[in-house]
Amino acid sequence: PQLSAFQFNIVDNMFSLTVATMGAAAIFFFAARSLVAPKYRPALMVSGLVVAIACYHYFMIRLSWQSAFGYADGSFSPTGKGFNDFYRYADWILTVPLLMVELIAVMGLAKEVARPMLTKLVIAAALMIGLGYPGEITQDWTTLMVWGMLSTLPFLYILFILWVELGKSLATQPPSVRSLVSFARLLIVATWMFYPIAYGIRGDSLPGAIPGLIPEKSGLGVVGTQIGYAIADITAKAGFGLLIFFIARAKTESMT
Amino acid sequence: PQLSAFQFNIVDNMFSLTVATMGAAAIFFFAARSLVAPKYRPALMVSGLVVAIACYHYFMIRLSWQSAFGYADGSFSPTGKGFNDFYRYADWILTVPLLMVELIAVMGLAKEVARPMLTKLVIAAALMIGLGYPGEITQDWTTLMVWGMLSTLPFLYILFILWVELGKSLATQPPSVRSLVSFARLLIVATWMFYPIAYGIRGDSLPGAIPGLIPEKSGLGVVGTQIGYAIADITAKAGFGLLIFFIARAKTESMT
Ligand SMILES: CC1=C(/C=C/C(C)=C/C=C/C(C)=C/C=O)C(C)(C)CCC1
Ligand SMILES: CC1=C(/C=C/C(C)=C/C=C/C(C)=C/C=O)C(C)(C)CCC1
Repeated sequence: PQLSAFQFNIVDNMFSLTVATMGAAAIFFFAARSLVAPKYRPALMVSGLVVAIACYHYFMIRLSWQSAFGYADGSFSPTGKGFNDFYRYADWILTVPLLMVELIAVMGLAKEVARPMLTKLVIAAALMIGLGYPGEITQDWTTLMVWGMLSTLPFLYILFILWVELGKSLATQPPSVRSLVSFARLLIVATWMFYPIAYGIRGDSLPGAIPGLIPEKSGLGVVGTQIGYAIADITAKAGFGLLIFFIARAKTESMT
Repeated sequence: PQLSAFQFNIVDNMFSLTVATMGAAAIFFFAARSLVAPKYRPALMVSGLVVAIACYHYFMIRLSWQSAFGYADGSFSPTGKGFNDFYRYADWILTVPLLMVELIAVMGLAKEVARPMLTKLVIAAALMIGLGYPGEITQDWTTLMVWGMLSTLPFLYILFILWVELGKSLATQPPSVRSLVSFARLLIVATWMFYPIAYGIRGDSLPGAIPGLIPEKSGLGVVGTQIGYAIADITAKAGFGLLIFFIARAKTESMT
């Protein structure tokens, strides 16, 4: 679609803000390792990796955004090069499993519990991401909905595992951090919900959409999706990592 | 050859995914040094170097890919600048000897055993890579096959040394890691096999190829080679390094 200068710039600026946030978070998580007990350092390292990977991808996403639209006569029109959605999916394929490792590492679960849970989560995540991609790159509402719905099945399975199975392990957490850990679980569920919403926003501007709240060709759908994903990524990666840091600190303090 | 937009993009995206994976792996291996006993830190350092070198090369390989093909009328045609295969061979000349150092370092072999084995391996690796290059850059099937076969001789010699000589040293490994170390040896042999296969895929699309399963000028050969090398590199460098990390962790734990 055609984008107004405001629409183009708000996305462009949001991408830059995300690069800066992820980069700063990466430096922080790596440097903060020495502030927690050795047992929790791997969790912080993994947090650092997640945001470092996202920093790279948002840098590339921004370059792709800038090459996908060209300015002329007060607005931005597609150059034909196409915005590359693959960066986001490549990012997720790498970071979603790492976020799961992070959560399980900070909970300090026994290997016999952690291993099979992680295996299930990682397989479901790969399915969720793989099935979502064809809908992300389509310009057809029905295609988007079909793949979006298929992708939602493993997504619901992930939420179920996190909620029910991880819920059982909450009882094994030291009382001082139990509420923080349960908040981490809630944060995952709440922020991850934003991804399918952001995905759907664009769909609502495609031909054939019901109820079609977002006018076709207005550019609002594209803008909403990109800003939605960026906010979700900042919360689910940097925000979540910060929470993991607080949990690791609290556990470190309760050890001495 | 002419490439479809899909063919061009799948390779371009695979290169970006490889850059991200190698970069993240480099950060991880350097940061993870503190998680293993001092004795095994050099092995992790070398793993980190290997993937850092690859991260740089894949970034350059991607730029070269983008400048080698130009978009017009729905497909990508050669711009005449040519894709630079040298990055890959420069990468291997640096990383293959380092991978051998890595394997031998984590096994903790005695110097009298390690030194001569390493010398033989490094010389054979240099021959393998040097002899493979003329075939990589040719457009003639016979040339590719001749250099490919010459390069296979030192390759088989390497596999022989790793399998037979390193096999003897397996008995000296602590029982707790013996299966991991033997898996590492298996992983090397299995992943390194993919390189000559990826090399051959392109050959199958050159004039004169037997059996010529890949149609000439279809672009499939080029795509197959690039994707094959990228997957092989991710497994042989990042995957192998991760395994080395697990071995070092297991050895560290068995020390205390
Ligand atoms: C359900 C659903 C999706 C879910 C995506 C999610 C949940 C992504 C989470 C990404 C995270 C947490 C990244 C942080 O590093 C898609 C693929 C958009 C497609 C539409 C249906
Ligand atoms: C046998 C053979 C080859 C083997 C290449 C190999 C085995 C490369 C390994 C590279 C690694 C392991 C890099 C990781 O850092 C060539 C040169 C393709 C030419 C064709 C014949």
